Amino acid sequence: MFESAELDHRIEKGVFEVEAPKVRQALLEAQFDLLDQARFPVIILIAGVDGADKGETLNLLNFWMDPRHVQTNVMDAPTQDEQDRPPLWRFWQALAPKGKTGIFFGAWYTQPLLKHVYGESADADLDQAAQEIIRFERMLTNEGVLLLKFWFHLSKKQQRKRLKGLKGDPKNSWRVTETDWKHFKLYDTLVPTYERILRRTSTVSAPWIVVPGAEKRFRSLTVADTIVRALRKELDRPPVLLPSSPVPSPSPYLNQPHTLKGLEQPHKLSRKEYREQVIKYQRKLNLLSRAPKFKEHAVAIVFEGSDAAGKGGAIRRVTGALDARYWRVVPIAAPTEEEHAQPYLWRFWRRLPRRGNVIIFDRSWYGRVLVERVEGFCSETDWKRAYAEINDFEEQMARHGIIQFKFWLSIDKDEQLRRFKERETTEFKHYKITEEDWRNREKWEDYTIAVSDMVDRTSTEIAPWTLVPANDKWYARVKVLRTLCDGIEAALKA
Amino acid sequence: MFESAELDHRIEKGVFEVEAPKVRQALLEAQFDLLDQARFPVIILIAGVDGADKGETLNLLNFWMDPRHVQTNVMDAPTQDEQDRPPLWRFWQALAPKGKTGIFFGAWYTQPLLKHVYGESADADLDQAAQEIIRFERMLTNEGVLLLKFWFHLSKKQQRKRLKGLKGDPKNSWRVTETDWKHFKLYDTLVPTYERILRRTSTVSAPWIVVPGAEKRFRSLTVADTIVRALRKELDRPPVLLPSSPVPSPSPYLNQPHTLKGLEQPHKLSRKEYREQVIKYQRKLNLLSRAPKFKEHAVAIVFEGSDAAGKGGAIRRVTGALDARYWRVVPIAAPTEEEHAQPYLWRFWRRLPRRGNVIIFDRSWYGRVLVERVEGFCSETDWKRAYAEINDFEEQMARHGIIQFKFWLSIDKDEQLRRFKERETTEFKHYKITEEDWRNREKWEDYTIAVSDMVDRTSTEIAPWTLVPANDKWYARVKVLRTLCDGIEAALKA
Repeated sequence: MFESAELDHRIEKGVFEVEAPKVRQALLEAQFDLLDQARFPVIILIAGVDGADKGETLNLLNFWMDPRHVQTNVMDAPTQDEQDRPPLWRFWQALAPKGKTGIFFGAWYTQPLLKHVYGESADADLDQAAQEIIRFERMLTNEGVLLLKFWFHLSKKQQRKRLKGLKGDPKNSWRVTETDWKHFKLYDTLVPTYERILRRTSTVSAPWIVVPGAEKRFRSLTVADTIVRALRKELDRPPVLLPSSPVPSPSPYLNQPHTLKGLEQPHKLSRKEYREQVIKYQRKLNLLSRAPKFKEHAVAIVFEGSDAAGKGGAIRRVTGALDARYWRVVPIAAPTEEEHAQPYLWRFWRRLPRRGNVIIFDRSWYGRVLVERVEGFCSETDWKRAYAEINDFEEQMARHGIIQFKFWLSIDKDEQLRRFKERETTEFKHYKITEEDWRNREKWEDYTIAVSDMVDRTSTEIAPWTLVPANDKWYARVKVLRTLCDGIEAALKA
Repeated sequence: MFESAELDHRIEKGVFEVEAPKVRQALLEAQFDLLDQARFPVIILIAGVDGADKGETLNLLNFWMDPRHVQTNVMDAPTQDEQDRPPLWRFWQALAPKGKTGIFFGAWYTQPLLKHVYGESADADLDQAAQEIIRFERMLTNEGVLLLKFWFHLSKKQQRKRLKGLKGDPKNSWRVTETDWKHFKLYDTLVPTYERILRRTSTVSAPWIVVPGAEKRFRSLTVADTIVRALRKELDRPPVLLPSSPVPSPSPYLNQPHTLKGLEQPHKLSRKEYREQVIKYQRKLNLLSRAPKFKEHAVAIVFEGSDAAGKGGAIRRVTGALDARYWRVVPIAAPTEEEHAQPYLWRFWRRLPRRGNVIIFDRSWYGRVLVERVEGFCSETDWKRAYAEINDFEEQMARHGIIQFKFWLSIDKDEQLRRFKERETTEFKHYKITEEDWRNREKWEDYTIAVSDMVDRTSTEIAPWTLVPANDKWYARVKVLRTLCDGIEAALKA
């Protein structure tokens, strides 16, 4: 990767003085067009070997661009708050919204590289990290992010010269740390590792741009000019309609019986049974949530279901068992403006609980493959890629020790009608029923197919779906509580 | 993945008798349209649990379609010929060309799954195999292949019933093997493994289609109908222009000096030095090629370079040192019609040497990122994705013990002019110079940038580029021979 970068690249002072103002002007113009269009964000990664003056480039970009629309994220060791969440959480928090520019100084590459360099991970681990990064970046670029990854390179000789030069300069000697010299000694180990991960993560939609780091004018002009050109290309091109997936929706034969139709509605619980069991499992859930080991985990609970399936009632039985300081319910409606300016998973990532906490999603990221699919709010390609993206998201949570539950509350069509009518005629339930509910009901079959596909594609060993027969509310609530108790108990024992 | 598939899916006889002829007719029509358009091939994978009557579906497809345009590949244990090549080779050999349908009964999933099931590989290995499969399949679908992957599922109960049923039937008892029962006992281990790899390899462009395998009519109609629908969707859609890569070609500043410009042309060899050294290294190369350990490897040598750089002369010095039974030179010109009907790497895969053999490519797969890029024979997205595809290809070779050399013979522009003129004026060299050579020469700068990018992106630890200063032919030939000797010697010692 570094063959050309090791050659002597430089731009003479006279040339720079002519070129720089032009590039700077073009950069500003592109930045304002980006802001006007607000169609996509730009995310710039700045990474590379020590001593390649990456910080200077960061300063330059902030100086040449309008810094009000640039978010600079210097990603150092994670804070306690960040350590309490899955590793990608801090990057999600820092994503720039559409129209803005985000610069990451050190990003999702730093930790996997350091681990490998310090001998804490094998080649296979590094490759696996690379694969996860590829999936994450593909999700970003599929969501429209313009991702520019700059890698600053120095040959060994250039690095030595650079470190010595800084060291000998009283004004700059503080810049050279012990780590820099340590890494310099490791140069011959480090560079092949860098090369390994760079090559693997250089994809068509997010290739690495290797910048020779030895000479300042060359470095500055190259980075700025590359950003201008990438921005212009993206700003000026007509919106592309991605080809739809080549594979058709399943044969109608396949949709014959399915997960939901196969679900039997069990006998009702009597009022007495219900009362006893709710109390029993609420008590157990409360005890579990106060177990010392619970502090090492967090719990994420997803509630999905047809309209009027009883999500709210079930949720209240769960929160009723928990200490109010440690749970939160997030109702998911149409995205806000701020959320619209981000990848669709962003609003869920930002809510992820700290350890020791319980988060309950009243509807969730599964909207992508349910309502957005059925109503055509996103393209076929978008919802089809969502299954893998969701599995990746849940894998991140699982690996971080977040215990996951996903409940589908299932009622049949007759029961829904009964409840809709009841809502219309009962004064205090009236607010719960809208025109939209009736419209959704007309698409009952479409939703049923979407749910069946969803369960097939996202019920995993780490985050299984629990299908809850919910014609009888009491049965459903007890089933939810019991599932939570069993699942948390098992996770705490593991 | 298998939630819905475990339910009881069936189609009644009466329904089948009405539906089947319709689906059959539609399938035939789609097949002939596919043949007429000859824009893409269809590749169908048939896989799944034992006892799900996959073979019957295979027969059915051959019966319902016109078998003259269907290639059926039953992939059993690899033959000796196949074992002598990288594992993917046999599948490349069997790829259906545009317009045709290829059915794989057992494919690139079988070996990784078996290894894992028999405890020969860890979860991480399985995941890595899945990643490689994803890359391979993405290459296929990017090249236009319509890839349909059917997985036949049975619940444990259904499988037991099926195996017992066959066993008890005198006409069919031979179908049930020891392995079937062995796998049945492993059901609870096998199915999560299947699920793991299926979920990971279910991509937007090549998702798995899970087929409930218990009932014959349902199975047949579902598979056939899904093929019809996929074919129709692909046949009827207008050709899609893929969005070009969002990242621009590098800033012109970056193209200042580069790998080739930095290359110094060394002193000439005297005739005496040349003769001595050619003989010395040819002798050494010959000895190495007859070493017993050589039989465990194969050698693949790529020659690229500007027109008139002296590839032919260098190649002859190499072959002159080898036993004629064990080497072959493959000159690469414009693809043949047969080659055009396949992914661009196909014509290189099919030439891969058996162990103990040497293959020399006079120009190679690098045409994709050189001539095809510069002349616009493929889209920007196509040549940009080629870097990773080529690295994958070479990784397959390396892992199989194929020792790789890639030579770029570099002459400067003046030297090329001298040689062109010599060719024009020397009778017996005249055939070597064409109008096209002069046209290519006009694009010298574009080619130079393409070569520099190529070296940066594909010079890997497993398959490095050797840049050969070739203004002096004698020096170049000796350098090639010496590089081969050193490389092979090192590989045989490893």
